[in-house]
Amino acid sequence: METQTTTVTVMTSDILLKHWQGHRGLTRKVIEAFPEKDLFTFSIGGMRTFADLVMEIIDLSNPGMIGLVTDKWTAMKDLPHHSGEGMPKTKEELLILWDETTQQIDRLWEQLTPERFTKAVLAFGMYPGTVCSTLFYFIDNEIHHRGQGYVYLRALGVEPPFFWDRS
Amino acid sequence: METQTTTVTVMTSDILLKHWQGHRGLTRKVIEAFPEKDLFTFSIGGMRTFADLVMEIIDLSNPGMIGLVTDKWTAMKDLPHHSGEGMPKTKEELLILWDETTQQIDRLWEQLTPERFTKAVLAFGMYPGTVCSTLFYFIDNEIHHRGQGYVYLRALGVEPPFFWDRS
Repeated sequence: METQTTTVTVMTSDILLKHWQGHRGLTRKVIEAFPEKDLFTFSIGGMRTFADLVMEIIDLSNPGMIGLVTDKWTAMKDLPHHSGEGMPKTKEELLILWDETTQQIDRLWEQLTPERFTKAVLAFGMYPGTVCSTLFYFIDNEIHHRGQGYVYLRALGVEPPFFWDRS
Repeated sequence: METQTTTVTVMTSDILLKHWQGHRGLTRKVIEAFPEKDLFTFSIGGMRTFADLVMEIIDLSNPGMIGLVTDKWTAMKDLPHHSGEGMPKTKEELLILWDETTQQIDRLWEQLTPERFTKAVLAFGMYPGTVCSTLFYFIDNEIHHRGQGYVYLRALGVEPPFFWDRS
């Protein structure tokens, strides 16, 4: 237990990790719900495929988490997805990347010391914020794109998982 | 300033309010971006219209915020949108409800005392959690449905606002 002076504590580090991993569990179910072909080809209104959106989430959550912990940021143009390299070809490959990221977040989280959450960062060398605000950006961006995946699934006639199921 | 013993503080009450209202500002821009007719009629894959999704957000954020502060919860079936009553007919009426809710959140937030955030609640008489987890459910649900609104806008050929613009 750490003692800190603060205004009002609404969330602790442990709760935030559980919150994020709960969302990641739901996103994994949405990936699984996609028919393999549609995951890599289906889109609406000129938007990216769900596989592309998921790769953006992985780019933020994996190299991004390394940046938050070590202050060593990958440039946006060098991220696996942005660079066009490292894009998986099958649902199974995508899920393997997903699960590696989940484990990496758990591992790196232990290195997020109390004082880091309010530390200023320049995420990916471009986006100013704090460690905390950047983490919430990652989580919110995942919820945003996953919500778009729900529409793709509905348009494909596939029932998406329940939004509240974060197991 | 309050002094509290905690594990690690990652977010304070003030930051959480600003975070939520920032998201609400973006959702307001998405409502505004919809052509009036499509707001109330357009849907994909049998989903609800964006006006319906926005009314769900208002149901959670307005009566829900009263519940979080006072422990007096409206039952789900009696919520304005669920009961089928109080559904606005125009974009202007929807935006008025939106703005009233924004102001109400600011007003009621002052009554969220430090000890309430970790207090157990049964939201709408049905959903167990803490004040904090319930607030995050409201915010996450808004991001989720707003993301769906982005797909509707793209399908309609309308450019949505930037996701990162929370002014």
